[in-house]
Amino acid sequence: MNIGLIGLGKMGFNLGLNLLDNNFDVVAFDVSEEARTKFAESKGSAASSIKELVEQLPSPKIVWSMVPAGEITDKVLEELKGYLSEGDILMDGGNSNYKQSVERSKIFAETGVHFFDVGTSGGTDGARNGVCTMIGGDAEVFKTIEPIFQAISVENGYHYAGKSGSGHFLKMVHNGIEYGMMQAIAEGFEVLEKSDYDFDYEQVAKMWNNGSVVRSWLMELVESAFSKDPKLDAIRGVMHSSGEGKWTVETALELQAATPVIAMSLMMRYRSLDEDTFSGKVVAALRNEFGGHAVVKR
Amino acid sequence: MNIGLIGLGKMGFNLGLNLLDNNFDVVAFDVSEEARTKFAESKGSAASSIKELVEQLPSPKIVWSMVPAGEITDKVLEELKGYLSEGDILMDGGNSNYKQSVERSKIFAETGVHFFDVGTSGGTDGARNGVCTMIGGDAEVFKTIEPIFQAISVENGYHYAGKSGSGHFLKMVHNGIEYGMMQAIAEGFEVLEKSDYDFDYEQVAKMWNNGSVVRSWLMELVESAFSKDPKLDAIRGVMHSSGEGKWTVETALELQAATPVIAMSLMMRYRSLDEDTFSGKVVAALRNEFGGHAVVKR
Amino acid sequence: MNIGLIGLGKMGFNLGLNLLDNNFDVVAFDVSEEARTKFAESKGSAASSIKELVEQLPSPKIVWSMVPAGEITDKVLEELKGYLSEGDILMDGGNSNYKQSVERSKIFAETGVHFFDVGTSGGTDGARNGVCTMIGGDAEVFKTIEPIFQAISVENGYHYAGKSGSGHFLKMVHNGIEYGMMQAIAEGFEVLEKSDYDFDYEQVAKMWNNGSVVRSWLMELVESAFSKDPKLDAIRGVMHSSGEGKWTVETALELQAATPVIAMSLMMRYRSLDEDTFSGKVVAALRNEFGGHAVVKR
Amino acid sequence: MNIGLIGLGKMGFNLGLNLLDNNFDVVAFDVSEEARTKFAESKGSAASSIKELVEQLPSPKIVWSMVPAGEITDKVLEELKGYLSEGDILMDGGNSNYKQSVERSKIFAETGVHFFDVGTSGGTDGARNGVCTMIGGDAEVFKTIEPIFQAISVENGYHYAGKSGSGHFLKMVHNGIEYGMMQAIAEGFEVLEKSDYDFDYEQVAKMWNNGSVVRSWLMELVESAFSKDPKLDAIRGVMHSSGEGKWTVETALELQAATPVIAMSLMMRYRSLDEDTFSGKVVAALRNEFGGHAVVKR
Repeated sequence: MNIGLIGLGKMGFNLGLNLLDNNFDVVAFDVSEEARTKFAESKGSAASSIKELVEQLPSPKIVWSMVPAGEITDKVLEELKGYLSEGDILMDGGNSNYKQSVERSKIFAETGVHFFDVGTSGGTDGARNGVCTMIGGDAEVFKTIEPIFQAISVENGYHYAGKSGSGHFLKMVHNGIEYGMMQAIAEGFEVLEKSDYDFDYEQVAKMWNNGSVVRSWLMELVESAFSKDPKLDAIRGVMHSSGEGKWTVETALELQAATPVIAMSLMMRYRSLDEDTFSGKVVAALRNEFGGHAVVKR
Repeated sequence: MNIGLIGLGKMGFNLGLNLLDNNFDVVAFDVSEEARTKFAESKGSAASSIKELVEQLPSPKIVWSMVPAGEITDKVLEELKGYLSEGDILMDGGNSNYKQSVERSKIFAETGVHFFDVGTSGGTDGARNGVCTMIGGDAEVFKTIEPIFQAISVENGYHYAGKSGSGHFLKMVHNGIEYGMMQAIAEGFEVLEKSDYDFDYEQVAKMWNNGSVVRSWLMELVESAFSKDPKLDAIRGVMHSSGEGKWTVETALELQAATPVIAMSLMMRYRSLDEDTFSGKVVAALRNEFGGHAVVKR
Repeated sequence: MNIGLIGLGKMGFNLGLNLLDNNFDVVAFDVSEEARTKFAESKGSAASSIKELVEQLPSPKIVWSMVPAGEITDKVLEELKGYLSEGDILMDGGNSNYKQSVERSKIFAETGVHFFDVGTSGGTDGARNGVCTMIGGDAEVFKTIEPIFQAISVENGYHYAGKSGSGHFLKMVHNGIEYGMMQAIAEGFEVLEKSDYDFDYEQVAKMWNNGSVVRSWLMELVESAFSKDPKLDAIRGVMHSSGEGKWTVETALELQAATPVIAMSLMMRYRSLDEDTFSGKVVAALRNEFGGHAVVKR
Repeated sequence: MNIGLIGLGKMGFNLGLNLLDNNFDVVAFDVSEEARTKFAESKGSAASSIKELVEQLPSPKIVWSMVPAGEITDKVLEELKGYLSEGDILMDGGNSNYKQSVERSKIFAETGVHFFDVGTSGGTDGARNGVCTMIGGDAEVFKTIEPIFQAISVENGYHYAGKSGSGHFLKMVHNGIEYGMMQAIAEGFEVLEKSDYDFDYEQVAKMWNNGSVVRSWLMELVESAFSKDPKLDAIRGVMHSSGEGKWTVETALELQAATPVIAMSLMMRYRSLDEDTFSGKVVAALRNEFGGHAVVKR
């Protein structure tokens, strides 16, 4: 089966190798010539433009976009609109907002192009050796591309989720859960660190990964992180975020679903971006106003 | 009526002046000779020890302890145990934990001393010009001291709350509410500050204090704070806390009462005490482990 | 000064009376004939359509829309677009989203119409007797309408906030703060209710309103509510919401501002809408799975 | 090696079988004669009282208490004080509060008895087939009992955590993390359930368990729960709790550690115990007071 892969970043490149391992014919494009060359040297073939990539594919064409959600995905999909036609299949494997995916599927449907939203999980290592995918789009057409997911995913690690948007919806919620789990684990270690005991965090995580209720891939990654830097002395606790956690909370607000833990996980990330807060100043100033409590001067 | 006042700090001194204004005979003690002298110069009289203070009072003696909760209150009340006897009245106006007040009332009851737990609110200015008090203890005996509260409190600003502990319980919950209200206000200004608009915070607070739903004494204090420092540039957002918010949350946990807002107010105070967090490092390290996301190096 | 008032609901009607008291010439429209008649009987005059209302106004025309945000405001403003022209002034006093107000001001600016977003607070009583208003729009043109706000607002109760959108932005944040303050107060009474003490909530609120740090209009309303129903036995704790709290949280997410208290206030409202939760079932099922803990059957 | 096991409940019985499988000589006691008989029939032996159990053990005696934390553990340990002497080893495998464990280790140390606090995780199945244990107490003496943990725990699933209390401290924090992870997962499914999509939860959980970032034992249990009841229709979302989550939050408060996610997990559990809330009534009443918003009557 021939697949056109757009995007050879951390995730896309590994996914490309994964596809090649499973005997798919992959022609790939990336704006970086270096990435293209590297991919071509890895048994894949590279196209010098999206147009060329599409032209190299037999009909019905299968194109998988693995570029970051947002502007770049917008641009790539916009360009593809000009090249794809009736019966072709387009997959968006970026973390696009599920609402956008619903819209895009409608727009592509106008010209008979089947659009699938593909949420992928498992990190870069998963992309390489066995990914986890959740796919939304037409149930019947999905059968055509199912062999791809069967091949590149971990066993039982792909799931046809339902109509358009459901794949990216699942991925969004997956990330919301991930935020909450990460913050829960992190708060646990915060308490350990502030306690009077002198714990060996790597060993604690290792033990928790063997037989405890909280054993999980995230705890394994914690173990790995502590194995490299026992007290994480080298880094600062600045927690960036890439959008899906925010979308999960926004979606929860729309659905009037109470998700305090996911919301707090996100807010603590925002809090970590500021060295000082205006809200803190207001409270400190208030305490000074009514109780004469000392404030900390800058 | 004669009152023995122990503690001439910010609150105690002002309360003493308030009592004097209302024609009570006040003999006061404080460990600081300077405070004693200053109080004696303000129409009050000062005793050089707690023992002497008690001796100067006619029976039944009325003693009001206005020292900080915790060790100092422990020590003062312990010493008073030796000097007070059947029929005397002892008031603890510090922010003691209500459970301790219940215990103390039992212990003093053994020798016939009537113990009252007195929560006071209104800040230092209130103490001087009209305080707000919530009192727990024996209902019958309360009538004896009610004229004191009638005199020194704002109109309708005192409340006999019930049996022992209820005064400090109310004060504790009052402070829990205060934490939540302060954080709510502070978060509002945080959003204003992060917005693209260029608000005049003093004017905003002033307007909100005149006719809006959020008009409140705390908002008046916000207005006052911004009038002195329009963007609070001089201070840092370090939010200390003095115990009652923590007790409110602990009590909520015991009662299995959901108090997310009060709990979060407290936790944001704790968060503000740390420049960096271990929990943040764990999350940042995790993101790096599974997604190769960059970490911020120290 | 002549003012065209659209919308005679709870807020609009009272605002109309307020304007009349202050000697403005008010012609009003509402879809309800009953409301129009009632207003006409109250010294005001009523128009039978928006078109007629606009025609009755001298140029430059001043129109104040006081209909609910959302579809109705959309429709009213859309219709007004056809009737207003260069130099006219249009005020939206509904709780519209500030982003929409920015958009609308741009659209009306195309035809020279000055659009102002007017946040109003103080409830129905405030609308009648002295409202609190926060206004965004052109600074120079504002001077023309300033006398209106001077007249109908509480003293110091109006504020020109800045460029378009700033009025509704302030109102949005005001409501976010309101959510947090209400939930903080409510949680305090939750703890009182679950305690072993037998508090008289009306008296507690009354005392807190006189001299305490938490004295506020909201606490006065709590006092009023308890005076009518001492334990609120007649109602259920279902907390609806009307949008601004949600917008505050959404805006906070966009600005990456940590607002845990406002977010939790909102989420507890959502939680109150459900008799049971799916999340609760998942946790209960999990506890059963790993620990054999009993579940509550339906 | 001979071990005296006290408590043959869900956890204790399985742990006993696990010990027997590993060729330890186990004499067990439980207040239930049925449990004793059943254990005796499973290759173990049973004593008819704690006294008899201790008498049957060779010196230095090794006793493992596996009764619920709280009063029962209090009683059992109190009784053991009379029977154990210099050089004996006592392990508390219940979920006791770590502070109590520190106290108990001191008390037993007075008579030369070595006390170990043993946190156990993994549920009833883990107890039977491979438990996860975290142990606090004397490092030197631990070597004597290490073979026990080596035998009954999953590989790498036991951890000597440090001085007295550290085992139960780790177990407490483990449960705090567990609360947060469970609530995060539950909130995710809450969003799925409230969405317009029609997800197959068992299949979603299965896919997430194969290659995704949130794969974990808890997610496997979710999968198992949904396999039995696809929408959890049979149960109510009442979430009980057994103490360690509360202790984690209390400890966080003492250490001034911000743990919003663990705290919210706990509070949502408390919230789920109430069909209606007083706090909700207060907010609903307030909305009615200032805005005339309708309340829901009982």
